[in-house]
Amino acid sequence: MKKVLIVGLGLIGGSILKGLQTQFDTIYGLDRDEQIMKTCYDAGLIKNKSFSLDYLKESDIVFVCLYPEAAIEFIREEQVHFKSGAIVTDVVGLKVAIMDEIRNFIREDVYFIGGHPMAGREGRGFAVSSEEIFRNANYLLVVEENTPYGCVNTLEKIIIKLGCKRIEVMDAKSHDDIIAYTSHMPHILSTVFMSCDRFDNTKYCVAGSFKDMTRVSDINAQLWSELILDNKDPVLNEIKRFKEALDNIEQFIESEDVHKVVEFLEGARIKKVNLGIL
Amino acid sequence: MKKVLIVGLGLIGGSILKGLQTQFDTIYGLDRDEQIMKTCYDAGLIKNKSFSLDYLKESDIVFVCLYPEAAIEFIREEQVHFKSGAIVTDVVGLKVAIMDEIRNFIREDVYFIGGHPMAGREGRGFAVSSEEIFRNANYLLVVEENTPYGCVNTLEKIIIKLGCKRIEVMDAKSHDDIIAYTSHMPHILSTVFMSCDRFDNTKYCVAGSFKDMTRVSDINAQLWSELILDNKDPVLNEIKRFKEALDNIEQFIESEDVHKVVEFLEGARIKKVNLGIL
Repeated sequence: MKKVLIVGLGLIGGSILKGLQTQFDTIYGLDRDEQIMKTCYDAGLIKNKSFSLDYLKESDIVFVCLYPEAAIEFIREEQVHFKSGAIVTDVVGLKVAIMDEIRNFIREDVYFIGGHPMAGREGRGFAVSSEEIFRNANYLLVVEENTPYGCVNTLEKIIIKLGCKRIEVMDAKSHDDIIAYTSHMPHILSTVFMSCDRFDNTKYCVAGSFKDMTRVSDINAQLWSELILDNKDPVLNEIKRFKEALDNIEQFIESEDVHKVVEFLEGARIKKVNLGIL
Repeated sequence: MKKVLIVGLGLIGGSILKGLQTQFDTIYGLDRDEQIMKTCYDAGLIKNKSFSLDYLKESDIVFVCLYPEAAIEFIREEQVHFKSGAIVTDVVGLKVAIMDEIRNFIREDVYFIGGHPMAGREGRGFAVSSEEIFRNANYLLVVEENTPYGCVNTLEKIIIKLGCKRIEVMDAKSHDDIIAYTSHMPHILSTVFMSCDRFDNTKYCVAGSFKDMTRVSDINAQLWSELILDNKDPVLNEIKRFKEALDNIEQFIESEDVHKVVEFLEGARIKKVNLGIL
């Protein structure tokens, strides 16, 4: 029976911890916050009572659920303690930078697979963590050319049992390109749209479309600034593409070309419908 | 006890019909579809068995729930049958054009108040109508300088009992300006964003922000083309403002100005939070 270690028991780490309870007999957890460790130990969620890197030596699978720089530093500094053959994964939302760094120093007998759970919820930290965030969520895995197939397979099985609907496996560049579109752009467009509000009574003149468009503009500005700037080129490319499309419909409206406007909207509708029920 | 007539028993008309049942003993309904009238009569939702304009003569309040041109034509052609002192309202999503037309021909002893329920749901027609669409919805009323206060008050009371959360009363120009921002722009931005999709596996790489951003891009292209083009100038003004704001954040990202990006996102967040829970 494999043993699992989760490093960092915040929203994502805590949620993975809770979601893995039925899969593994032995789950260790490490967090700098002693109170969180005590809470987890008292609740029977983790087997270790105290913070010790010795648990790394026993663990077959390690989820590093830290912010980007901290994740890289933890793996760099503590990899000497990893068990030979261990699978190590992270939860960082951008992959080129982290994979580039880790590739340079990772031990040959330790297998790093990038992870990106497309899951979250409002609030922060262990207090709001819940295995429910993975229900029907997508989970992206980012591999190198030489990542052993068996390691990917092992991790996939664990993630599916977390409740995730679908796992996509890709390389780091593809990951960052598509995330610029599917995640960074919605946050940028939502905040740009919200920033344009100039009416006194906006809140009394809205329906569902406005609520949907502005939901994520209640944003963690520091975190998202870093994510966007760390993915600068793919994001700028998406902004450029968006502006071209917006220019098109603006031109159709300007020239009152109803046929072109209908065609534009209908084209978007078909793309949306072809995505299936999201 | 006042009598109510609903003209056009589609999604909105049908929903109003269902929502008014506990408020009025006598509700008439008219629809060109005989089967819908039979369904409503058999269910006890309307008092009249057949289609007849005679019911206009008895009705104190008339909801005209037709598409724009049809609504104007109905009021123009049939106003000879309205009861003196009747309050007539519509559900058209744009107000300058319809108010301009109706002002020119409406009888002096009939009071037209523009109505815009900010409510809807997916699907079309009576089959999907439900009083639930008004729960916590906003409802806009559009008045003229000389609209009698008592008529507005009467209509407001009826609408609040429908389950609406809030009624905003305004003039037609203000209505069309704010709707360009709160309703037309979310639909334009959502479809523009959706039109930019170029990946094969988009649906497996999305989370909540993408779903929110694209929900309304499953759009009725014909209807929304008309709404957007009929509100051309306010919409073009909003697109211009949006493009300026998008240019700003693009510039901050281009120059890797993290302070400016944070400031931009935080500004949007504060605007969103100040709107309160939507």
